[in-house]
Amino acid sequence: MNVILKVSGKFFDEEDPAKLLALKNSVLQLVKEGYRVGIVTGGGQTARKYINLARKMGSNEAFLDLLGIWASRLNAYLVVFSLPEVAYMKVPESLEEFIQAWSHGKVVVTGGFQPGQSTAAVSALVAEATNADLLVVATNVDGVYEKDPRLYSDAKLVSRLTTTELKRILEGSQSVSAGTYELLDPLAIKIVERSRIRVIVANYNRISKLKEIIKGEEVASIVEPA
Amino acid sequence: MNVILKVSGKFFDEEDPAKLLALKNSVLQLVKEGYRVGIVTGGGQTARKYINLARKMGSNEAFLDLLGIWASRLNAYLVVFSLPEVAYMKVPESLEEFIQAWSHGKVVVTGGFQPGQSTAAVSALVAEATNADLLVVATNVDGVYEKDPRLYSDAKLVSRLTTTELKRILEGSQSVSAGTYELLDPLAIKIVERSRIRVIVANYNRISKLKEIIKGEEVASIVEPA
Amino acid sequence: MNVILKVSGKFFDEEDPAKLLALKNSVLQLVKEGYRVGIVTGGGQTARKYINLARKMGSNEAFLDLLGIWASRLNAYLVVFSLPEVAYMKVPESLEEFIQAWSHGKVVVTGGFQPGQSTAAVSALVAEATNADLLVVATNVDGVYEKDPRLYSDAKLVSRLTTTELKRILEGSQSVSAGTYELLDPLAIKIVERSRIRVIVANYNRISKLKEIIKGEEVASIVEPA
Amino acid sequence: MNVILKVSGKFFDEEDPAKLLALKNSVLQLVKEGYRVGIVTGGGQTARKYINLARKMGSNEAFLDLLGIWASRLNAYLVVFSLPEVAYMKVPESLEEFIQAWSHGKVVVTGGFQPGQSTAAVSALVAEATNADLLVVATNVDGVYEKDPRLYSDAKLVSRLTTTELKRILEGSQSVSAGTYELLDPLAIKIVERSRIRVIVANYNRISKLKEIIKGEEVASIVEPA
Amino acid sequence: MNVILKVSGKFFDEEDPAKLLALKNSVLQLVKEGYRVGIVTGGGQTARKYINLARKMGSNEAFLDLLGIWASRLNAYLVVFSLPEVAYMKVPESLEEFIQAWSHGKVVVTGGFQPGQSTAAVSALVAEATNADLLVVATNVDGVYEKDPRLYSDAKLVSRLTTTELKRILEGSQSVSAGTYELLDPLAIKIVERSRIRVIVANYNRISKLKEIIKGEEVASIVEPA
Amino acid sequence: MNVILKVSGKFFDEEDPAKLLALKNSVLQLVKEGYRVGIVTGGGQTARKYINLARKMGSNEAFLDLLGIWASRLNAYLVVFSLPEVAYMKVPESLEEFIQAWSHGKVVVTGGFQPGQSTAAVSALVAEATNADLLVVATNVDGVYEKDPRLYSDAKLVSRLTTTELKRILEGSQSVSAGTYELLDPLAIKIVERSRIRVIVANYNRISKLKEIIKGEEVASIVEPA
Repeated sequence: MNVILKVSGKFFDEEDPAKLLALKNSVLQLVKEGYRVGIVTGGGQTARKYINLARKMGSNEAFLDLLGIWASRLNAYLVVFSLPEVAYMKVPESLEEFIQAWSHGKVVVTGGFQPGQSTAAVSALVAEATNADLLVVATNVDGVYEKDPRLYSDAKLVSRLTTTELKRILEGSQSVSAGTYELLDPLAIKIVERSRIRVIVANYNRISKLKEIIKGEEVASIVEPA
Repeated sequence: MNVILKVSGKFFDEEDPAKLLALKNSVLQLVKEGYRVGIVTGGGQTARKYINLARKMGSNEAFLDLLGIWASRLNAYLVVFSLPEVAYMKVPESLEEFIQAWSHGKVVVTGGFQPGQSTAAVSALVAEATNADLLVVATNVDGVYEKDPRLYSDAKLVSRLTTTELKRILEGSQSVSAGTYELLDPLAIKIVERSRIRVIVANYNRISKLKEIIKGEEVASIVEPA
Repeated sequence: MNVILKVSGKFFDEEDPAKLLALKNSVLQLVKEGYRVGIVTGGGQTARKYINLARKMGSNEAFLDLLGIWASRLNAYLVVFSLPEVAYMKVPESLEEFIQAWSHGKVVVTGGFQPGQSTAAVSALVAEATNADLLVVATNVDGVYEKDPRLYSDAKLVSRLTTTELKRILEGSQSVSAGTYELLDPLAIKIVERSRIRVIVANYNRISKLKEIIKGEEVASIVEPA
Repeated sequence: MNVILKVSGKFFDEEDPAKLLALKNSVLQLVKEGYRVGIVTGGGQTARKYINLARKMGSNEAFLDLLGIWASRLNAYLVVFSLPEVAYMKVPESLEEFIQAWSHGKVVVTGGFQPGQSTAAVSALVAEATNADLLVVATNVDGVYEKDPRLYSDAKLVSRLTTTELKRILEGSQSVSAGTYELLDPLAIKIVERSRIRVIVANYNRISKLKEIIKGEEVASIVEPA
Repeated sequence: MNVILKVSGKFFDEEDPAKLLALKNSVLQLVKEGYRVGIVTGGGQTARKYINLARKMGSNEAFLDLLGIWASRLNAYLVVFSLPEVAYMKVPESLEEFIQAWSHGKVVVTGGFQPGQSTAAVSALVAEATNADLLVVATNVDGVYEKDPRLYSDAKLVSRLTTTELKRILEGSQSVSAGTYELLDPLAIKIVERSRIRVIVANYNRISKLKEIIKGEEVASIVEPA
Repeated sequence: MNVILKVSGKFFDEEDPAKLLALKNSVLQLVKEGYRVGIVTGGGQTARKYINLARKMGSNEAFLDLLGIWASRLNAYLVVFSLPEVAYMKVPESLEEFIQAWSHGKVVVTGGFQPGQSTAAVSALVAEATNADLLVVATNVDGVYEKDPRLYSDAKLVSRLTTTELKRILEGSQSVSAGTYELLDPLAIKIVERSRIRVIVANYNRISKLKEIIKGEEVASIVEPA
C-alpha cells in the first residue's frame, strides 16, 4: 500500500526533536510493515523569513515562491538525514525526479516543486503519480472544521466529508480557518478528485500514531473524492 | 523588453513549414531589435495521440500528462533547432531550469513543466519569473470572443478586456469555445493578476506580424490584469 | 539471462493499444521468470514528421537526427509509463546513462542516443554493454528474407544465418527490402560480431509470444555472429 | 579584476533588508565598473537551527554539515534572486560547478560545498580557482584583533598582517575571538598562501562601501600571504 | 567561421609542454580573430593503458571503450584548464551536451562520446552539428599518403583528394598506415560527405601554424567531400 | 558492516592485472558475506603526469588538483567496470553524490572530490557519511612505522596506535616517510576522530586477504581515534 504524507511547515517550526523522532519512528514502522511511503514537507517559518526579506528587496513573485520552495527542501533534508537506512538520499526538485526516485523502492521526501503551487498540491500530484491509496495531511489542527475552531469554541470537527463538501466549507464561509485552506487548495482538490485519492487530515501532534491514522482509528477528518 | 510567446500545439499540427519559418523570422527580428524572447509550445495532436494510447492501457493521470509534456517538448525542440544562432539549445524541464537558461541572454524555448498544469499556466509562470512585460498567446482564433465564434456567426471579438471580464466569459457561459479556456486557465489568470502581466491573444496565422501584435497594431485581444 | 529488445518505430505508428498491452505483458512475464530486459524503441512516423518539417526549414543533419531521437524517446516513455512497477522511470539519453540505469535491476527503456546512429546500432551497443545473451529485433516482417518479400512472392525467410551472410544479403542485392537494412546496419553488425551476440529478427505482431521467440520456438530469423 | 566576497552567515541572521540592498548595490556597482565578483555565503542561525535539531536526533557529522550547507545555499539563493540581471541563476554545489558557472561571465553566488569544510575554506578555493586577486571576508567585526575585542576594551585592530602572523594569533592565544577563527581556518590559510591571494577582513556593516574596502580605503585588516 | 580541430591522442603522449602551449596560443589567436573553435581530443597511451588492464580482467568491449573515452576526457580537461579565459569549463559527454555548450560562444573541448565510435567520428559529428566549415585533423604525419610512409620511402603526400579517393586508399591497400585509418573512419566519412564538410589532415607538430593550416598555406592534405 | 577501502594511486601504477583481480575478488567476497563496501582510489602516476604538464603551462593550483581528481576517477572507473554485477556504475563527483549512490545498496567507487583535499580525506569523509565501522587504507607499505623504513633498516611497524600518536609521528619527525603522510592528512584525522572511525593501514600487496585485514588477522597498523 502506497501512502503519501504531507507534513505542514509548522511541524518544523516547533523545533521539537521528539516530534521529529516520532515521525521517523512512524515511517520506519510503516516501511517495516510493507507500506511504501512518500513525504512532502512545507516551508514554515523559514520560508516566510526568506520570502519577507526578498519581498522587501523588490523580488518578483516567482523568486519569492522559489525561496519558499528551497526552505521546504531544507525541511525535507532534515527528514531525509533522519532516515538514511530507508530514504532516497536526494530531495527531488520536480515531479519527474520524484517518479524516478520513487521507482527505487525507497521512502522519498520532497519539498515544493514549482512557483504558483502549494506543497498541498505537490502532495496530491505525488499521490497521483505513485498511484497512492491515501494522502495524509498532517497539520496543526485535528482535521477539517465547519467553522474556525480558533474563533468559535463550538466548532465541530467533521470526521467524514466529500471534496464537494470541503470546497463548500472552503469557499462558502468567511470564518473558515486560514489553515484549512492550506490543507487542500483548488489544484490539490482537482487532482484528488480526478484520480480518486482518499485524503485524511490529522494533527501532526499525533504523528506517533500514523498507522492508526491511516487505518482510521485516530481523531481525524476523512475526505472522499466526490 | 521581455516578451513571452505561447504557441498553441495546433500550430505544429498543421505541419506547415511556411508558418514555422514565419515564427523563426519574427523571433529573429525581435531579437535583432533588442527584445528578449521566451517561447512556450503546446503539445497538440502528438500529445493527444500518446495520451489516448496510454489511457487505453490504463495509465494514471500523472503519466498521461507527462506524455503530453514530452510531446510539447518535441515541438519545443523543433523551434530550438530552427534558431541555433539565438536559442538556448536545451529545452528546460522545470521553471528553475528555465530561469537558469534565461540568464544566458538567449531565446529560451520550453514545453510543459509538470502534470496538472497547462502550457498556458507555464507561459504565465515563465512571464512572471522573467519579469516579462507581455505574454502573447498565439492560437487558432483571432482573440477572445464573447460567444463561441464557431457556433454563433455574430460572435464579436473583444479587443480589450480585464482578467475579471475574461473569467466571467470563461465561467459564466456554456457557449464559450473550448479553445478559449485553453488560452488562460485559472492558474494562468492568477499569475498574470498577481504579477500584473498584460496578455495579448492573437491568431498564429498572423505570426509573421508578431512585432505588430506586440505593439497592438494587429487584430487581437488585449487582456489587462484586473 | 539478459535480453535486449529492439522495437521498430512502426510498432508505435499502428497506435494499437492491444499490441502495446501484449508488449507490456510479455515483458512482465519475462521479468517474473527472472530475465533482465532492456528495450530500445525506434522513432517511426513521429520522427519522420518532425524531420521532414525541420528539413524544409533548412536544419542541419545533426539536428534532424536529434529530432528523430527525441521522437524515439517519446515512444520510449510510452513504454516506460506502461510498466511503472518494473521499469526505470527515466529514458537514458546516452549509453553511459543506460549502464547506470541498468545497474538498478530494472527494465530500462531507451530511444536513440546520438546523431549518425540508428536505433538498431543503439540496441547492439546496449546488448554489448549489458553482456546480453540475445538481441531481439521486432519489426514488421517475419525475419530476414533472401529477396524483398514485398516484390517477390516466392521470397523465402532465412531461419538461420550468420552475420557474414546477412551482410551479403544487405550489400549484394538491390532487391533487398529497405526495411531489412534498418534491422542491422554496419555498426550494429560490427558490435554483435565483436561481442558475439546472437540476434533474432521477428515480427512484432508476435510480441505476445516474446518468450517463445527467445526460445527459438516462433517464426523468426536467427543471426549468429560470424 | 576578480574579487571573491565571503559574507558571514550572521549577515543574514540580522534579517535587515537595508543591508541586503547595500550588498546588492555594491555588487552592481562593481560589476558596472568591470569587476568580476563571486560571493560565498555562510549558513548562520538557520544552519545552527537545523544542525541542532538533527544532532538531537542522532545524525552523523556528515549529515549535520550537509544541513548547514543547505542552509548556506538558502542564503545564497536570497542573494541570487536579488541580482537577476547579473547573477548566474543557480547556486553551484561543488567547486567544479562553480568553475563552470564562473566561465559564463556572471556573478556567481554559492554556499558551502562539502562536509568537513568551512565556507571560509570554500571562499579561498573559489578565489584560487578563479585566479582572484582578492578575497574579502565580510564579518561582524572590523577586522583581525590581537585580542578578543569583546573581552578586552583595549584590543587593537591589526590593519596589516601576514598569514603567518594570523596563524600565530589564531593558535597562540586563548583570548582570540571565536569569530576570528571562523574567518580563515587552516585549509583557507593553506590555499591563500599557496596561491598568494590577498585577504581583506572587514565589517559587513560597511558593505555599502565595498569598493572602498577593496581599494584599502576603509577600516579593515589586510592579510598578505606569507 | 567555425572550425573543429581533432587532436590525436599521440599529441598528449609526448608530454611536451611546448606543444601544448603552441596549441593554446593558436586557439587564442583564432578566437581573437573571430573564429569559433571546437576541439576533440583522442585518448592516446593513457587510453591504451587502461584498456589493456581491463581487457586482461575480462571486461566487455563497451566498458573497454568507455575507459578509452574517460582517458580522452582527461586529455580534454588538460586543454580546457589551459584555456580558462575562452573555454567552456566542462567537457561535454554527448553530442547534445556539446551543442548546448557550443551555444554559449566558447571554445568547447571534448573527448569521446560513446563506445563503438572513434574520436574521429566524434569530430565529424561535432563539425556537422556546429555547421563548421572545416574539420582539421591534427596527427603525427603530414597528411594522407598513397602508401604507408613508414614502409615506403617514396610514399607521396596527397595534397588534395576527395572522400571517395580517401576511401579507396583506406580500403584498397594493405600497405596503408594504420594511423591513416584512425584519421577518418567510415562513420566520419559518411558524416563529412552528407554535410559537405571540408577536412584538412595536418601534422600536430605544426600546430603553432594552425591559422596557416586552415588557410591552406601549410603542408597538409585537403579532403573534399565527394 | 560498512567498510571503506582507500586504495593508493600507486596500486594502479603497477599495471598488474593480478592485483586488480585480487581486489575484485576480495570485494566480491565481502559483498557476498553481507558487507557494504565503498572504495576510494588515488590518482597515482597518471595524476602526476597531467599535473606536471599543466604546471609547466602555468595552470593555477585548483586546476592542477582537478586534473589529479580526474585521473583518480579514471582509476575509479577501472574498478567500477571490473565489478558490473555489484557496483554503482557511475563514479560520484561529490560527497552528496556519493551518499545518494550509496543508498542504492551497491559498492560505490569514487576518486577525488575537490581541490585542496587528498583522497585520504575523501575516504574519511565517505566513511563518516556512511557510518562505516572501518576505514582500510591500502598502500605500498605494511602499515605505520615509527621511522621511515626506507631509511632505517631497524624501523618497526606500529601495530596499534591512536590518532594522537599518529599525529605525533607525522609531525614530530623529519624521518617520517613521505608516503605515511599521504595515509592520513590533518583533515582525514580530524574526521576519523570526530566520528570515532577505526583505521587500518595495510599493504595493497595483501589485498587478496582483505577480509583477514578487516578482522585484524593480517600484518597491518590499527589506528584508533583518540
